[in-house]
Amino acid sequence: MHRVSRETDDAFEAMATRPVTLPAVILAAGRGERLVPNEASSAKPLTRLLGLTLLERAILTAREAEITRFFVVLGYRREEIAPRVVEWGQSYGVDITVVENCSWREGNGTSVLAYADLLDANFLLLMCDHLFDADALACFLNASGEEAACHLLVDPRIDEVFDPEDATRVRTKEGRIRAIGKGLEPYNGIDTGIFRCTPAVFSALKQAQAAGDGSLTGGIRLLAAEGKVRAVVLPDPFWLDVDTHDALRHGRRLLLKRAIKTGEDGVVARWFNRPISLRLSAWLLEHKALPWATPNVLSFLSFFIVACGGVLFASGGYLAGLIAGILTQSGSILDGCDGETARLAFRTSRFGAWFDTLLDRYGDAAIAIGVTIGYWQERPSEWVWIGGILALLGFILASYTKKEYALHYRAPFRSGLMAKLIKRDFRLFGIFVGAVIGHPYLALLALGALSHVGIVWLFAKRYVGERRASS
Amino acid sequence: MHRVSRETDDAFEAMATRPVTLPAVILAAGRGERLVPNEASSAKPLTRLLGLTLLERAILTAREAEITRFFVVLGYRREEIAPRVVEWGQSYGVDITVVENCSWREGNGTSVLAYADLLDANFLLLMCDHLFDADALACFLNASGEEAACHLLVDPRIDEVFDPEDATRVRTKEGRIRAIGKGLEPYNGIDTGIFRCTPAVFSALKQAQAAGDGSLTGGIRLLAAEGKVRAVVLPDPFWLDVDTHDALRHGRRLLLKRAIKTGEDGVVARWFNRPISLRLSAWLLEHKALPWATPNVLSFLSFFIVACGGVLFASGGYLAGLIAGILTQSGSILDGCDGETARLAFRTSRFGAWFDTLLDRYGDAAIAIGVTIGYWQERPSEWVWIGGILALLGFILASYTKKEYALHYRAPFRSGLMAKLIKRDFRLFGIFVGAVIGHPYLALLALGALSHVGIVWLFAKRYVGERRASS
Repeated sequence: MHRVSRETDDAFEAMATRPVTLPAVILAAGRGERLVPNEASSAKPLTRLLGLTLLERAILTAREAEITRFFVVLGYRREEIAPRVVEWGQSYGVDITVVENCSWREGNGTSVLAYADLLDANFLLLMCDHLFDADALACFLNASGEEAACHLLVDPRIDEVFDPEDATRVRTKEGRIRAIGKGLEPYNGIDTGIFRCTPAVFSALKQAQAAGDGSLTGGIRLLAAEGKVRAVVLPDPFWLDVDTHDALRHGRRLLLKRAIKTGEDGVVARWFNRPISLRLSAWLLEHKALPWATPNVLSFLSFFIVACGGVLFASGGYLAGLIAGILTQSGSILDGCDGETARLAFRTSRFGAWFDTLLDRYGDAAIAIGVTIGYWQERPSEWVWIGGILALLGFILASYTKKEYALHYRAPFRSGLMAKLIKRDFRLFGIFVGAVIGHPYLALLALGALSHVGIVWLFAKRYVGERRASS
Repeated sequence: MHRVSRETDDAFEAMATRPVTLPAVILAAGRGERLVPNEASSAKPLTRLLGLTLLERAILTAREAEITRFFVVLGYRREEIAPRVVEWGQSYGVDITVVENCSWREGNGTSVLAYADLLDANFLLLMCDHLFDADALACFLNASGEEAACHLLVDPRIDEVFDPEDATRVRTKEGRIRAIGKGLEPYNGIDTGIFRCTPAVFSALKQAQAAGDGSLTGGIRLLAAEGKVRAVVLPDPFWLDVDTHDALRHGRRLLLKRAIKTGEDGVVARWFNRPISLRLSAWLLEHKALPWATPNVLSFLSFFIVACGGVLFASGGYLAGLIAGILTQSGSILDGCDGETARLAFRTSRFGAWFDTLLDRYGDAAIAIGVTIGYWQERPSEWVWIGGILALLGFILASYTKKEYALHYRAPFRSGLMAKLIKRDFRLFGIFVGAVIGHPYLALLALGALSHVGIVWLFAKRYVGERRASS
């Protein structure tokens, strides 16, 4: 499934009419010897990180920021890389031109000049070995301000940068870059490797090259000396220059951490489910063990496992109940993987999110019905059914209440403890615990009651808040 | 409950910091002899329309467009009107200054000049006897464009205007008013009585007054002759100058029609429930028969009636079922009144909408559980319970699916027939029909099955749509 734009009401109509955006030039010509010591390893742009190559990640992140036209400059081992790049253009639905740079040994400025021969227009400049955030890039692309030959996205958090020795430092004053270089002192920012350039950059690079400096920094330095480079401050602390194996491991940790929406997770999800589901997601992506396991298939699999739990609960007895409880909790853990793999592999979709949330509700229903049938076989009373129905109603309306809140107030409900206790992770964990101690129906009733109390609590809290605000 | 702004994420924070908006000057000094033939009737600004006076409607509509500062110019019978206006300022949380115009007999231009003595700044000018739309007003206030001494909101639909003989006509060219007056020929627009003025209007009015014309139109005509009045086109066809009893009746019809969101109504709601609920809402507002019947109380009452239906269904037997069915359908009809009265009385609130939707779901649950218990007494089998649970699940998830769609796609699901058949109005009507023919449980199962099929249908339709769009 293709990713669709998050902002427009109807992305399909919008795609047909959307304005031509800046093309992105991605530099992928260098040797990268710190990461790739010899020819036996993958070329640096093809180094894999959570299932995707570094170069793919750069392209897909930029695509999330609405970039659709790419120029990928290749040099070292270009015969090996070029066919892959062409393939990606088709499979990711973007327009990619491969640019060959035979002079790549003379510095990365030559790669920009290789592109200069093709197009004499403004462009976005990215490095193939940098991880960055699509929203930060979109912000940078839309940042208005004074004209300049070049805009550079600068990270002001100089103490937090990974591998500070190798970072390119900048000194800014009144929004302009005054000096740039490795080892620069004093400095107040780090070059993130993301540039918005006008063709003025080309002549500066040629000038630097003629003076013996073939690096991109050499050209930028000449423009900076004339006050022609503006600094734009990076809004999000996430970015990483992946030059070493340490950096690669650090990038993996950062990406996994960003694959979950921490603010939305319940207590059980955060401390128990996520540590397992993230490892599983990473395994799925890195080993491509189950190529059919798309996010939507994972959503369905999670539902199926929970539904099997429901069927086993219905059969009654402690052992069946215990296995059912384990299945329920396993399904709950697996329920994290669809979103995680979708975000890590740039496969999120509105349809997928919509589909997942409905399957979750059907899964909850399967558990509530199964547990009720199981208990009814022990004690055949109509009250068992009424209790089960009310519990199920609580489960579904707890979700419904929060979704309706988001629709009417155009913002998610600010999570308190009560809002977290009526989330699905806690609910399914409670059923699991109930199964372990041999009382799943009791757990169902308790969780159902908690859900109804939680709904009343959410309304009361908001009602008091509105009364206070209007008085 | 106070109305809160629709646009901001957190209206309470926004209220503290929102920018000072234009003050509105409302002209309410004239005699209005066509509507108020003698002193025995209410003064024109105090003429009631669906429970609110015309002047209150003008103030509250402008408040919806974020106007919070008002100057109400009174003349004829001002001793009677002024105390009411002061009262409204407090109860509606807006800032109102009463301006006295002793020269009101000389024309409505004198009323604007009475305000001129207080404040020499830009202002919005409204007529107390005009009905208009808050969104259209907000649009007009935000319309940018060339500077002018005065902007006038003009209705280009000259053939659709009510009471065309009495309307003030305008002739516009290149966005500027060239001529204005009753009986003007040729003409291409109608003056809606909504102006955005600069103090330049004051001197024009004085000049017209000196020449013997004390009307607002007289002053505007002088500015128009110099090309200083810009025309802004009315986006919404709704507005009405209420000068006669016919116009008052027409305005009542228009307001009632606008109190329902036609696009969202199901088949039963549109053709059966609304004609009744609108009459009931009008009665409630006009007679102030049940002053405690606020929109939230009506939401609760509707739920309570439906829940009583559920209890009666549970008791079993045809007669109880029939009464339960009638209660169910009555609750469904009454469920329209909360939104209608809220919109007609400017009492809509996000909290109310959120509260109502949850009560609807609890009401659905009461019916499903009651019908199931009733049938189980006839045929005590676990399958009766399972059928009832699945039907309830279908009812709630049909709503849930559409709400989740709106959240993820940021637009309501485009209604087809299937989307309408899984709405609450159809569901409750089906239960009513089932009760009449003596088979409410059968109706419950059929409606539950229809809901699940409808959910699958919505997903399939969207899935096919996305596939087609991406190929």
